[in-house]
This record gives sequence, structure tokens and C-alpha cells, in this order.
Amino acid sequence: MIIVFKKSATAGEIEHVTDKIKEVGLAVHLSQGEEITIVGAIGDETLLDGLPLEALPGVEKVMPILKPYKKVCKDMRPEGTVFDVDGVKIGGNKIQIIAGPCSVETVALLEDCAEKVKASGASILRGGAFKPRTSPYSFQGLGEEGLKMLKAAKEKTGMPIISELMDPRDLDLMCEYVDILQIGARNMQNFRLLLEVGKSKKPVLLKRGLSATIKELLMSAEYIASQGNTNIILCERGIRTFERATRNTLDISAVPVLKAETHLPVFIDPSHATGDWSLVEPLSKAAIAVGADGLMIEVHSDPENALCDGEQSLKPAKFDSLMNVLGNIATAVGRTI
Amino acid sequence: MIIVFKKSATAGEIEHVTDKIKEVGLAVHLSQGEEITIVGAIGDETLLDGLPLEALPGVEKVMPILKPYKKVCKDMRPEGTVFDVDGVKIGGNKIQIIAGPCSVETVALLEDCAEKVKASGASILRGGAFKPRTSPYSFQGLGEEGLKMLKAAKEKTGMPIISELMDPRDLDLMCEYVDILQIGARNMQNFRLLLEVGKSKKPVLLKRGLSATIKELLMSAEYIASQGNTNIILCERGIRTFERATRNTLDISAVPVLKAETHLPVFIDPSHATGDWSLVEPLSKAAIAVGADGLMIEVHSDPENALCDGEQSLKPAKFDSLMNVLGNIATAVGRTI
Amino acid sequence: MIIVFKKSATAGEIEHVTDKIKEVGLAVHLSQGEEITIVGAIGDETLLDGLPLEALPGVEKVMPILKPYKKVCKDMRPEGTVFDVDGVKIGGNKIQIIAGPCSVETVALLEDCAEKVKASGASILRGGAFKPRTSPYSFQGLGEEGLKMLKAAKEKTGMPIISELMDPRDLDLMCEYVDILQIGARNMQNFRLLLEVGKSKKPVLLKRGLSATIKELLMSAEYIASQGNTNIILCERGIRTFERATRNTLDISAVPVLKAETHLPVFIDPSHATGDWSLVEPLSKAAIAVGADGLMIEVHSDPENALCDGEQSLKPAKFDSLMNVLGNIATAVGRTI
Amino acid sequence: MIIVFKKSATAGEIEHVTDKIKEVGLAVHLSQGEEITIVGAIGDETLLDGLPLEALPGVEKVMPILKPYKKVCKDMRPEGTVFDVDGVKIGGNKIQIIAGPCSVETVALLEDCAEKVKASGASILRGGAFKPRTSPYSFQGLGEEGLKMLKAAKEKTGMPIISELMDPRDLDLMCEYVDILQIGARNMQNFRLLLEVGKSKKPVLLKRGLSATIKELLMSAEYIASQGNTNIILCERGIRTFERATRNTLDISAVPVLKAETHLPVFIDPSHATGDWSLVEPLSKAAIAVGADGLMIEVHSDPENALCDGEQSLKPAKFDSLMNVLGNIATAVGRTI
Repeated sequence: MIIVFKKSATAGEIEHVTDKIKEVGLAVHLSQGEEITIVGAIGDETLLDGLPLEALPGVEKVMPILKPYKKVCKDMRPEGTVFDVDGVKIGGNKIQIIAGPCSVETVALLEDCAEKVKASGASILRGGAFKPRTSPYSFQGLGEEGLKMLKAAKEKTGMPIISELMDPRDLDLMCEYVDILQIGARNMQNFRLLLEVGKSKKPVLLKRGLSATIKELLMSAEYIASQGNTNIILCERGIRTFERATRNTLDISAVPVLKAETHLPVFIDPSHATGDWSLVEPLSKAAIAVGADGLMIEVHSDPENALCDGEQSLKPAKFDSLMNVLGNIATAVGRTI
Repeated sequence: MIIVFKKSATAGEIEHVTDKIKEVGLAVHLSQGEEITIVGAIGDETLLDGLPLEALPGVEKVMPILKPYKKVCKDMRPEGTVFDVDGVKIGGNKIQIIAGPCSVETVALLEDCAEKVKASGASILRGGAFKPRTSPYSFQGLGEEGLKMLKAAKEKTGMPIISELMDPRDLDLMCEYVDILQIGARNMQNFRLLLEVGKSKKPVLLKRGLSATIKELLMSAEYIASQGNTNIILCERGIRTFERATRNTLDISAVPVLKAETHLPVFIDPSHATGDWSLVEPLSKAAIAVGADGLMIEVHSDPENALCDGEQSLKPAKFDSLMNVLGNIATAVGRTI
Repeated sequence: MIIVFKKSATAGEIEHVTDKIKEVGLAVHLSQGEEITIVGAIGDETLLDGLPLEALPGVEKVMPILKPYKKVCKDMRPEGTVFDVDGVKIGGNKIQIIAGPCSVETVALLEDCAEKVKASGASILRGGAFKPRTSPYSFQGLGEEGLKMLKAAKEKTGMPIISELMDPRDLDLMCEYVDILQIGARNMQNFRLLLEVGKSKKPVLLKRGLSATIKELLMSAEYIASQGNTNIILCERGIRTFERATRNTLDISAVPVLKAETHLPVFIDPSHATGDWSLVEPLSKAAIAVGADGLMIEVHSDPENALCDGEQSLKPAKFDSLMNVLGNIATAVGRTI
Repeated sequence: MIIVFKKSATAGEIEHVTDKIKEVGLAVHLSQGEEITIVGAIGDETLLDGLPLEALPGVEKVMPILKPYKKVCKDMRPEGTVFDVDGVKIGGNKIQIIAGPCSVETVALLEDCAEKVKASGASILRGGAFKPRTSPYSFQGLGEEGLKMLKAAKEKTGMPIISELMDPRDLDLMCEYVDILQIGARNMQNFRLLLEVGKSKKPVLLKRGLSATIKELLMSAEYIASQGNTNIILCERGIRTFERATRNTLDISAVPVLKAETHLPVFIDPSHATGDWSLVEPLSKAAIAVGADGLMIEVHSDPENALCDGEQSLKPAKFDSLMNVLGNIATAVGRTI
């Protein structure tokens, strides 16, 4: 931690601050310039947590130095995390594609979709059973009924399944049915939910919140990891900006930034990033080129009659031709799909 | 709902869309201009929910017209909602001040603080027992122990108390102890939590999410109201923008915008908006002048040793002098504190 | 400047960096912790300008410490800048109100408006002759014809006038007619224009850019001040955020933050901040309460027929009643209007 | 234009609005629903420009329908604009790479850089002679001296050159030396400059402003096109968001959105988008994959000693290996570099 003092800071004020730092057990380095005095608090910065240094008399500003995330930090596992979900390796050289409908609607639709996306090269099936909706009057998902349909589709196709968890009270139920728990953007800082998911040891896909910084995303992953679960996929899905031509703004730079900061695999969800199926194709290509470890794409056999997010769903034939191009781009950057 | 067609839209495409709209039971008004064709779908727009109109061939864009919130809409109760919490009237001409420490720490500190803020004119006591923290390694609050301290402080001072609810599993416990449930910014779209709080019928203070639009805030209030609970305070507490001179950017315009859109009372939390005690004073003045129905201010008897948010806490003496000025401004705008 | 090194930085890399710093003439303080090495470059940070420290091998991040603005910094004139424009004192205890139409249209309308706003207590008359418009097909202002009308209105009412300068080629012309040059939000970083205005020594009102940080606003003021002109008013007029309920988001906190950082007077423009006349009243009240040194408000005698910005213009009668309330709030915070 | 009325609107208020619309010569379509009345103003919306419909009594909101840009609209030239700059075709199937140093410093450095980037496949040379800098105390460019160096480098390598224009007073000088005029992000809404550039008929690269919407970027291009110059390259270079892990947030979706809206070629500048050379490589790959027509990349032979932007400059060897991968990705998406 670096503490910068105001020009007007008195010797007594500086001493008061250094005393506080020493009290919690950190070493103090004092740099007295002509214009300004700086104090470095060297050691475990978490000991300073809760100390309102910025409010102490004489202090101009406080700048943290160490990274507040430990278990998800790149240094902890420089070779990168690779984990296995029912035979699907996540985080390695092979890029994994999650595909399927926004929400589970009927057995027939789900199985049709699952077989088609599998044939095109997807390896994991998605489908929402509990849906977070902005309006209380919108379709909220089929609940356990939907989970059963997902399980049936898994039995038929052999694809592992992922579905969203919204409430700690549903955790045990979800764990019976799904292979990967999804934490949605709106729950990225639902800390109680993160702790429960950490304890469960199930693989997790953690979506970035609409206005979460990359650092905050890593801190939320740290919540899960702090309970012993590092089978975590980070998922960029667009952030909220002033631009409204797209529903959200895909922060494509998040992928290389995250790959440099953490050992966890990083996916992109181009469907929610834009809310527009016609943009899913170019953004998927960009995602593979930029170095994402996987994609999550909404595919629906009959988008016109989808119960939610029909606007952003690809039809299976579109998805199939997209997969071909993605394969070529993967080759161009030295990976496989 | 207005549907605007592309120049290139064919008669067949337009008919396909109007058929879809008629199918769900809405009337269709067709306006054919030289350059452009527009269709108005007149009636209950929620019937169109889930219909991916924007993805249908020929459609350029879709513009909703009706407000998606019904129960919290101004029209529903133009005179404004006023409700009573243990004798404290919220939403009327009298501005109510919630004050107290960020988190409950000890009985002595809490009671000292409670007595002082009451003497200065605060009417409700705040204090966190369950704390949402960005880092899993930060102080997470005292839990039930903290709730007991709040109750003791209430018994001593007669002030109703407010504390944050983070998890539906804590609802019954919280309801035993507190008078107003606070839903924090990070849980503004924790829809399951909103539904439970709606069912509980306890008064609620709902904070705006960091990147939530005013419309989304109203939709979250609608979740609570949809379960029969309209004893809701909306609280603006700063939004996330590019500016970093303050922790968040207080969206002061949200107050008059909300007062025009909804019958619910609107409060401002200047402490979280800025994260800096020296800005709490000017922003509190602005909040009263702009028409807020109340404030929530962090006050701590010993901020230097606070376990969290010491930087943004006022000392009781500062709070007291602030209350005097706020009283004068309230008079200037025709209200009382 | 603080340079933080990567854990993996070698002794050679650290030495390479410290050599670079010493080369430009700064002293180096080295703090070697267990986990991390920090170097403080103590002295005139501008000497490091152009040195790509962040790109040097071994460097994790670089954190500037000193403020990059010197002439507009609070320390330079702690008592605050007060300057006189034709007898109107800007920056003192008395709050000054600039009012008038968005653009100058006719002599009759302008003089009618000028007389009315003066009677209500405004001290400076505004009116655009050169208008920055998003569309090349919108009304672009009357040019010199408009300036002549402004001068006529000044002669009739005695009010000093302010108008926007968009192009360095118009500077001499503008200086003949107006008392204060306005630099619009879109030109806040038109550095050539800032330099010219600095050389001209005319009082300037500098508007904050839509996405300019407070620090960038101060750096743009520094451009003007660097040429010897410190008769500068800073004007907050709303920033661009994700929220669309208002045209922009008024960053009310900018006022106390700026008052602490600079000696320059700070105004607020509530008309452009919201783009909605019904919000001008509450925001003006908030602006006075928060400590602004002045307001700039659009007033038009016949908004329905205004050539631009009719939506955000107050009618003279509304303006008059607003001025009464503002006077009461000013008294409540110890100032006059 | 669609005008939505308040529930409370009277027949008289609705008539007043429709009269206003008819006055300017537009047809009126009235749709009266149970809850709401809507009026469509069918015809040339620009006739309504300046009419403050939103402020008229009874009006709830106003929604424009037609696109305000005409000359740069896709419909105007669906096959796309392709233009030639000294033998380099911009906008066709071949992707063009602009490369070179941030600012021109010495003849030797510039020519060394030019020869190397040309050998690697770049087709246009960049270099700043007039530099927009946040601080008045930073290096501002060599001015005409720099332009002469650019011309010398062009003579040696045959590469056309691009450099930034900041001031209408420099236009004639710039036109003598450079082949493409660059309008920087901070001048995207310097409307006078846009008009002059439009009149000059020189090819222009127009950068998106830090907080400009895609629609505003198109309107600024329309300013240039309105003067008869449609040899315009649009350049996405990162927008300002809350995220600070990168200097700006590259809005990669802007490419497909722009390609659908306009016939103009679209480039990406990955160097300014991130401010970090290590991110230039992945973002360049993404840019090619997403469908950009070209890139503008900063390359410097000796970034450690660059006078500006050394942090974001690639060394020639890095640039060379990047060009190889970009070639492969271009092939994968059916284009050439």
C-alpha cells in the first residue's frame, strides 16, 4: 500500500498514520520528497483492510499495490487450469462450444436442438430452467420440470449440461441434474450464492456483471475459490455503456487481460452481449481470434416462437455454417474446436 | 408497441408480423408512408412478451410505448405513498433521516451513535449485520449477534431500525429484529429475494443497482409490489460511470424523474454515492433541495477504528451541524425535517 | 511517480528502470518488500513525460502522484479566483445567474427575454450565434448577425453577454462583441482553440466534455491558464452515462470536488444536463445547495417556436418563480444571489 | 416521427400537436387506443427539426423513426464505397494496414520504421506532426517539419501517408503533404473542421469520439459527405467506459453494426483502444475476424525512447510476426491482406 500525503501534512499526522500501519504488523518505508511525502506499507495488505487510511488527517490518497485475489491469480497456477466435465476438457488447447436454447420449453424442441448443435460440433448443452427476468410478469422458466428435460437430453446425446442457479435454496436440486452451474450476470456479486457454489465443488460458469470491473469479476471468482472450488469458467457477456446500438458492449479486451491475470479459462457469450442474432456470427469469430477458451451461444430450432430471447438465437443451420468458419479461425491461431 | 419496417419489407413480411400481433389479441394500426411502414399494436403490450418481433423478417425496430410497471406507476396513486414505520411517517412532507454506522460492531458504539443521531434529528437507525463485501477476506458482519445489538439500541432509543437482507434464507430471522429491510445495490436484481420480500409485507428500502437504469429500478420495485407489498422506499446511491474522482456518480436527477414516474418515496444515500465523508455534507444539501423524501447517512462515533467504510462516515458532531443546515434548506423548499 | 515491479522482475530490469529515471534528473527511492519491489521517482514528474515506463521489462504498473495541473490548482490561490466582467463579480459569495435563449433568433425576442431575466435577477445574458449541431442539416446559428443582436441587447439592458466560440478563425470577431467566450462541451479538448482563448485574455466559460473526467477538465483549463489567462469559469453540464431517462447525467459531485481542487469558480448548466425544462427547476435548487458559484439557464419567451432546444427552455414566468426559491436556498447556505 | 401522448392528454392538446405537424407539411396518422393515443408524423422528419414536440402539453414522448444520415447511409450505395489512395484500394476485399510511429521524430527513425512495416505488408504510413495532448506541457509534435519528414519517407518507400489535422488553419498546409487527413477522436464533433475537410475532397479517416455513439459517428461523417466528400474511413478506437484495465474499451461490435448501416469502410485502431502493446496483437486478430476493412497500428523502432505513446507501440519484429497471423485469419474469413 502506498500512502501519499498532502503538502500540508504535519510530522504528527504522518507519524499517526505510520503508527497505525505498524500496529497491524506491516513495515513502513518513508520517502520524503521536496513537494510530497510518501509512505509504503510493505507486507500483507489485507491486514490494512478496514483501516480508513484515506480519511486520516494529512492523507491525500491511498494506492493499493498487491492484487486482492490470491487463489485465482495467474501466479498460483501459471500453466492454466484445465478441468474435465464428463469427458469435456475445459481450459486446454481445444475450444469448447456451449450451445442450446435460452430457456427449456419442451422435450421435443430441446432434444432436436441438442442433436443438431452436437452434430455441428458443440460439446455442452445449455438451457435455462430458472430464468432471471427484468419483469415479474415475464416467463420465469419451467423450474424442476425444465431440469428433467435437460437430463433427458443429456441421456440422449451424451452432452453435459449447464443451467443457471439463482437461489441458494435451489442448489441441491440443481446439483442433481446439471454438470455446470451458471451464475448469471445479475448474481455475480450475490456473495452468499458464490460461497454456496464454492462449497458444492460443482464446476461453475461465472458471468461478468453488467457493470463489474475485471477486478471485481476476479474477486467474485475468488469467493468461489476461497471455498476450495477452482473449477471456474469466467464468462464475458457484454458490459453496460452509453452505446445503445447493441444491447450491451462486448468487452473483447477482457479476454487477453483475464488470460494474463488468472489461470482460469475464459469464455465469451456473444448472444447476450448483443441481443441480436445477426451480430452473433461476427462476434463469435472475433472471440476465437482473440483467444477465448470457449463460447456460449444461444441456438433455437424455432426462434420465432421461443419463449424468451428469440431475437438473439441462431437457427441450427446458421450455427452449423458458423462452426465451420470458427474452425478455420481456430486453426489460424493454433487451436482446435 | 410500434413496429417500424425496413424500406425493403415486402407486403408478405408485414402481413406475417400483423398476423402474429392479432394472434395474441391486439389491434393493429397500419401507417404506410412513402419511405416507411409503421404498425402500431394497440392494447396490452405484455401479451407480446416473448414474441421476438425484432427478429422477424422485414422488421427494422420495435419501440415499446406502455410502461412495463403498473403497481408502482404514479397513475396508480397520484397523491403518493405514505406509510408508517413505528410512528415514523415515510413519504410525506416531513423528510426522514436514517443514520448510523455502516456495520454494527459493539453495543456501546451502536448505542452511543444512536443516541447522538437521534438528538440531532435522525428518526431511523441503520446498521449492517450481514455485509456484502467485494472480498471474501473482508469483515462480513456480526450476523444475528448484530441484529440483537440493533434491537437493544431500538429499545433504548425508540428508533425503528433498518438493516440489509442478502439471502432469502435469512428473511424470517431479519423480520424478527428489524423494521425496514434493506435490499442492497448488488441485489437489486436478485429477483427471488425481491419476491420473498414482497410476500413478507415488511417495509423495504430498495437501493438502485450500480448500473441499473431508473426503469429497471422501477421494475425491481414492481417485483416487490406484485406480491402485495407497496411499502417501498427507492434509494439512489450513485451509479457507475467513467469518472473516478468519486467512488460512484450520484444521479441527483433520478429524484425528480422518479417522483414523476412513481408514487413511492425516494431517498438518497450520499455516503455510498461518494465514498468520502467530506462530500456527504454538500450532497446531503443538494438532496434536500432537489426534493428527496429522506436521506440515509453513515455516522460513526470513531471512524478511524470502524470495521468498514470509515472513510465515508461522519462523526456525530459533523452530522449535528449538517442537520441544522438541512433544516434551513428544507424550509426554503417548503418541507420539514 | 511510483513504479511497481512484477514479482518476476530481475535485478537488471529494476536497475534499467532506475537508470532511466536518474537520467532525466529525478531521485530514486527503492522499497524492496518480500513480495514486491517499489520504486519512487521523487521530483518533477513532468520530466518523466514521454518515458514509456509501463512498457519497460519487469514493470507491473506506474502510478503518478503529483497533480499535472499547476496554474489552476487550489494551492496556487487558496482564497479562490474572483474576477470582474463589466461590474459583475464572478467567483465571490454572490451567486451569478446567466440566462437567455439557446440561440439568438430575432432582436425582439432577445431583448424581451433579456429584460425579463434581468428583472428576475439574472446578471449575464446568454445567446448562441454559432451553434454546434449534431446534424449538418440543423439550424447553425445566425453568425455575426446574431452577435450584433447580442450587442444591441447589452446596450439596452447593461447585461454583459456570453456566446460560444467554435473556431479559432472567429476569435477576433467574437472578442469585438462578447464579454465572455464560451467553449462548448464538444470543444473541451480542442487544444488549439484553448491556446488561442488563453492568449486572448477574455474571460472564458469552459464546459466539461460529455465524457471528460474532472482531471481532464482541469487540464483543459490549464491549457488556457498556461497562456496567462486565469479568468476561467468551469461549467458542469452533465456527463454521458448508460442512463437515458435524462439526456445526460448531471454530476453534481463535480462541484465540491472541483472547489477542493482548483481556485476557479464553478457553474452548473442544468438545461443541457437534462434536456428537459421540467427538471431545470429541481436541479437548479440542488446546484445552489451543493455550492455552485453560478448557473447558466436557458430561458425563451416562446419555447414552442424556438429554433433550437425549445424542450429545455424555461418561460420567463417560470424562471422568475424559480429565482425566488433559489434566493431562499442561497440564504440557507450563507450566500446571496 | 411517433408522438405518444399522456393518458391525461386532452383532445385540444392532441389537436394542437397535430396542427403543428401539419403546418410544416407532414401527414398525420392518429391511432387512438384504450390507454393511449399515438400520432405518426409521416414524411420528411427534418421538417420537424427545431419543433420542441416533447415540451408541448400532453406529450409523453417523441420517437424518431427515419435515419438522420442520408449520404453515408447503406441504402445510398449498397455495394459499399471503395476508393483509391495512390494505388491503395480502401474498402474492398483486401484489408489495408496503416502502420507507423505515434509521432514523427527524426528522418532516420521514420524511414527505418516505414521500410520495415512496408516489408511486413503495411500499405499506408502513419505519423503525427500535430499532436493533441491532454497536457499543455507535453510534446506537441514537430509541425511542418514533421510533415516534411513524412513526405521524404513517402518518396523513399512509395507509401501514401496519413497524419492528423487539428485546426482548420492548417488544412492547406496538410493537403500539400499528406494523402489522408486524420480527424482525431477529440475532434469528431469539431463541426467546422469537418465542413472544411468535406470541402477539401481529400480522403479522410474519421475516428470515433471517446463517448460518441455509432449514430453520432455517422452524423459526423455526414457533415463531411454533405460537402461532397465521401472518401471517408470510419475508425473505431475504443470508447470510454467504467472499466480501467484497458485505457479504453474497444467496441468491436461497432464494426458489424457500421457495416450494416453505412457504405463507408471501417477500420480499427487497436493501439489507442488499449494503450498497451501487449494487447495490440490479440485485438488486431479479433479486428480482422470481425470484418474490419483495415487496421491502424502504432509501430516504433525504439519504443523505449519514443516521444509519445511508447507503451502502445509494437516493435517492427513483433509487427512482422503479427502480420503473418493476420494473413491466416484473413484467409479464414475469405479476405486478403
